[in-house]
Amino acid sequence: MSFEAAVHAQAIELDKLAMEMTAEAGSGHPSTALSLGHIVTVLMFHSMRWSPDYPAYPTSDRLVLSEGHAVPIVYAAACRLGVVVGKDPDKRRKLTPADSHKLRAWDSELDGHPNPIEGFPFFDAATGSLGQGLSVAAGLGAAAKLDGIDKRIYCVIGDGESREGQITEALDFIADQKLTNVLAIFNCNEYGQADRVSPQQQVEHLIPKLKAAGFEVKEIDGHAPAQIKAAFDAFAEGSARFDGKPTAIVARTVKGWGAPTMQGGGWHGKPATGDALKKCLSELDEKRVQLTSSLASGDAFEIQPPAQAAPREQSAGELPPMSQAMKQMDMESLLHTGKLATRRAYGIALRALGEVNDRVVVLDCDVSNSTHADMFAKAPDLAERFLECKIGEQNMVSVAAGLSAAGKVPFCSTFAKFFTRAYDQIEMAINSGANFKLVGSHAGITLAADGPSQMALPDVSWFRAWTTMRDHKGNPGCYILQPSDAYSAYALTGAMAEYEGPCYMRTLRADTEFLYNDGQVFNLGGFETLQEGRDVVLCACGYMVHEANKALDLLDKAGIAATLLDMYSIPFDADKLLDIINANNGYVISLEDNYGGGLGSAIADALTESGDAFTLRQMHVRRIPKSARTPEELLQMCGLTAADIVKNVLSLLQVA
Amino acid sequence: MSFEAAVHAQAIELDKLAMEMTAEAGSGHPSTALSLGHIVTVLMFHSMRWSPDYPAYPTSDRLVLSEGHAVPIVYAAACRLGVVVGKDPDKRRKLTPADSHKLRAWDSELDGHPNPIEGFPFFDAATGSLGQGLSVAAGLGAAAKLDGIDKRIYCVIGDGESREGQITEALDFIADQKLTNVLAIFNCNEYGQADRVSPQQQVEHLIPKLKAAGFEVKEIDGHAPAQIKAAFDAFAEGSARFDGKPTAIVARTVKGWGAPTMQGGGWHGKPATGDALKKCLSELDEKRVQLTSSLASGDAFEIQPPAQAAPREQSAGELPPMSQAMKQMDMESLLHTGKLATRRAYGIALRALGEVNDRVVVLDCDVSNSTHADMFAKAPDLAERFLECKIGEQNMVSVAAGLSAAGKVPFCSTFAKFFTRAYDQIEMAINSGANFKLVGSHAGITLAADGPSQMALPDVSWFRAWTTMRDHKGNPGCYILQPSDAYSAYALTGAMAEYEGPCYMRTLRADTEFLYNDGQVFNLGGFETLQEGRDVVLCACGYMVHEANKALDLLDKAGIAATLLDMYSIPFDADKLLDIINANNGYVISLEDNYGGGLGSAIADALTESGDAFTLRQMHVRRIPKSARTPEELLQMCGLTAADIVKNVLSLLQVA
Repeated sequence: MSFEAAVHAQAIELDKLAMEMTAEAGSGHPSTALSLGHIVTVLMFHSMRWSPDYPAYPTSDRLVLSEGHAVPIVYAAACRLGVVVGKDPDKRRKLTPADSHKLRAWDSELDGHPNPIEGFPFFDAATGSLGQGLSVAAGLGAAAKLDGIDKRIYCVIGDGESREGQITEALDFIADQKLTNVLAIFNCNEYGQADRVSPQQQVEHLIPKLKAAGFEVKEIDGHAPAQIKAAFDAFAEGSARFDGKPTAIVARTVKGWGAPTMQGGGWHGKPATGDALKKCLSELDEKRVQLTSSLASGDAFEIQPPAQAAPREQSAGELPPMSQAMKQMDMESLLHTGKLATRRAYGIALRALGEVNDRVVVLDCDVSNSTHADMFAKAPDLAERFLECKIGEQNMVSVAAGLSAAGKVPFCSTFAKFFTRAYDQIEMAINSGANFKLVGSHAGITLAADGPSQMALPDVSWFRAWTTMRDHKGNPGCYILQPSDAYSAYALTGAMAEYEGPCYMRTLRADTEFLYNDGQVFNLGGFETLQEGRDVVLCACGYMVHEANKALDLLDKAGIAATLLDMYSIPFDADKLLDIINANNGYVISLEDNYGGGLGSAIADALTESGDAFTLRQMHVRRIPKSARTPEELLQMCGLTAADIVKNVLSLLQVA
Repeated sequence: MSFEAAVHAQAIELDKLAMEMTAEAGSGHPSTALSLGHIVTVLMFHSMRWSPDYPAYPTSDRLVLSEGHAVPIVYAAACRLGVVVGKDPDKRRKLTPADSHKLRAWDSELDGHPNPIEGFPFFDAATGSLGQGLSVAAGLGAAAKLDGIDKRIYCVIGDGESREGQITEALDFIADQKLTNVLAIFNCNEYGQADRVSPQQQVEHLIPKLKAAGFEVKEIDGHAPAQIKAAFDAFAEGSARFDGKPTAIVARTVKGWGAPTMQGGGWHGKPATGDALKKCLSELDEKRVQLTSSLASGDAFEIQPPAQAAPREQSAGELPPMSQAMKQMDMESLLHTGKLATRRAYGIALRALGEVNDRVVVLDCDVSNSTHADMFAKAPDLAERFLECKIGEQNMVSVAAGLSAAGKVPFCSTFAKFFTRAYDQIEMAINSGANFKLVGSHAGITLAADGPSQMALPDVSWFRAWTTMRDHKGNPGCYILQPSDAYSAYALTGAMAEYEGPCYMRTLRADTEFLYNDGQVFNLGGFETLQEGRDVVLCACGYMVHEANKALDLLDKAGIAATLLDMYSIPFDADKLLDIINANNGYVISLEDNYGGGLGSAIADALTESGDAFTLRQMHVRRIPKSARTPEELLQMCGLTAADIVKNVLSLLQVA
């Protein structure tokens, strides 16, 4: 039979299966699925170079379904093709038609939206929160380009979804990086959830927008097999060149194609059941008869396998001691000043890491001279592994998720405050099981002069939520790291690279005095005792460790022997902490340069679980700060100076 | 003298002052300021209709400085014009030249970035976190359109900043809403912080992008007074029509204009000091001589005052009881089912509120049929106060900040999960002192089938950070509300409208049984005792109140008299809670359907401050959930069923 007829036959099979799956699940988005039947058929049965037996094979072409709610159409194809699934890599199996009955069931790999960590390795990243997929695809494309792998990344984006600003950030990034191996496919079915898509997202506006973004744009009928194939072939032809314009396809499609019953508005996210389902299925059957001679579908297809993956040697050597690295970088003189900003130490560590670890890539959002990621960017042998994302934080984080899926270890840096606008992307990357590192600079109030619009203040509270649960490997969803000096910032950067999982490190604008040396070991989950006392425990992190240090002498003069802990990690060893607090009569003060819900609450959680009597005084920022010219003025404004610490200790111990 | 010469003379005065201010502050962005000298001069001294004596006058034209770091140039103009400032409205004063010496000082109204709540009412919103200003301007424009006020909103956006996806969301929104009273001015000085802006953000790409977005685009030399004036005049001429295309100006400018010493890269965010400063100032003086005959600057200008504000009567009546409202909406039958989803009750309350309160406006992101905000949208007399933002959450929240600045009470709704991508915008709105309400639906794990990409899980932890500090009025930065039934959701929607400040309410997808009635009062900061016991306190919120309810009977059978509290608000009355826990032997269990750091940690914070011996067992989500077909399956998956509660109580009380 003709390719045309075969695609129609297969697409309609998938459409029907998607209808049945969502009906049985009692929820899902069949009408969206039907708008993609033909495109997904041409991709998965013909154009993509991949193997259903090894869906995550390194050289396979990839499909990123940005409009994740359309996933039943991909699951339908996967069930037909017997794609290999399974949460446990050692116990993987081929999907069977029976699996199509388990969509969204709690013991099924066919999750409500693409969710690789639940056992569907065909996908690289969790999607479903809209607007993120094209950035993930860009990350996969950038990794393939770096590794010299001829791999094509197909990304399907909804028209309504294209309203999300992140999509334009991704388009600009793809154009900047000349990622001709990424194909942006816009599924223009004209309907969002509540209503039609805005004219701003309709084909007539979308095409000029994409052209203005520097893309080669092909408009096609998304249900015309020959047009789909031709567009994919044209993209494939130039995909490995990495010059000229990247390609976008604008596909006119019909939401509920082939089943007039569920076309038009009102059917978004609603499965047809009972008679309505029967009606839709028969409408699809009629459509099939109309479009093709009936025959066992799929016969006409032969999926091209991916190229044999070349064995890759990847170095992952030891990070040298900081002082040694600084000597090599002719920065030794800085060591003698006795102080260094933790953000600077991060830059030094990044560069040293880059030399010993091929997998490390660095991303930044136009502030690399503030975060000091520019130390990596400026090293000639590392420069190609530095990806400048310009001022688009959402895109940066999702690109990192894509890079991680391709085996890279991405470090993302910007001001800690500006990561806030990528929290949704960070959550989706964690849900994807991505291995990525976020390093936010200028954290907390000691940034001072720039004012609150540049200060990260509720950030620790948000990331801490991730320390209260466990990911699929049984690890904390994220580690929060708050180094107080350059040696710890340097060492923790190395520790992050060695650890396979998400980390968030806060660095400081101001120089801080050295508290440690090359010999000191820092572990994710650890803390360090800087002074052992008996009367009260000061639990401080980051800049506040230095303020607490000042307080120690004042307290000593007042006859109080305080214990000082550098709580550089959340989570931390709670049992060890409780022993120390018990040895200090149960009195503890937490010190942080951000709003509450962070370190103090983490300690409170540990104390209240034990059931013993403890008294915790939390010292943190309790007002919206404003600009002042020095960190000291900010600490005063927020009641966090050494003198304030002493005052709190005295009232806590009721000696004043 | 000619307008041309007067603008040059004045602009150079402002440029010099901006140089001196940043030099004295020791930080700031003078080179960016110099790229805006002429544009700001024409705006503040000529085109804007406003009064330096009443900078926040309701009918005044507004300037939103999206690239907040350029603010010294506006402060320079404000000092020259004696703009009225002051945190305390009763103690406001005119700025004097002396104020220019206090930029970024901790007792100055001239904060590092635009910051109205620190006493600079010329601005409507805090900016500095990039990409948000145009959305704020759109909110101000939409409010003026609703109120029939002829008011023009000028928004200055940096070229590098225009990479932020939110800018395109704002452009689409402005085009959708035909906000011809908003002028987007792109300051194209070609340099970002770390480097030149990407070609994607340069004039050659920006102009076609803006045209593709449906804008009338004017390209001008941003240092040519006549061109600036002509472009502003053309915008003003059609600004009140609300038909046809909105306008954008693309201004070619020079970063460090007039002072070659600080032009080109490397000068971003660096004040010139010492000889470099002297050199720049003399360069500017030469430029002035070259461009104009010297004369007392500003003479040639006369600022046009704003129109007299018409007295506005705004109704803010009582919200009727829910059952009465439902009768009026022919929904009485639902009352008899004994259960109703809290999201549905929110929709009912919104509609009833709209009828009695003119200030209420509603925004949604294409999910109004899920959040039930469509009940407001579909009421013919309310429809014009419903602003559909399509799938662009960041824009929605910043638009709300603008609406609030114009006196509206905006309710924003989308899935609780999708607010995550607007946390940076929410933080800036709180920093702006905005009065806005966020209502996130489908919160927590009981959403079930759609899976983790649609579930809000770390959200309570983030918002809780805002409950640990106080805003400029001494109120919590935000209230978190988690109603368990329709009556409480309805009443709390009314309470949010009455309260002048930020609130975040989580609503549920599933129907939940009625626990209350019309008579019940709910207060921000309160909680409700549903059963009084003596052995243990169950602190639950939202859906978990119902699971705890089931547990009560099981516990009773086991001879345990548990107290059940509906903790519908964070913060809550901690003293009252501690008394109750004390009366229950200090045993407490917290129950929430999200990750930790939320309600449980809020209770832990309160307990540890007291210093008494309490034992808290926190029950919350400790894994990344996956899809399942029913809420019950999710509760089981996450160990949060009534049976799990009983198990935890027994082990807590050591009776098992």
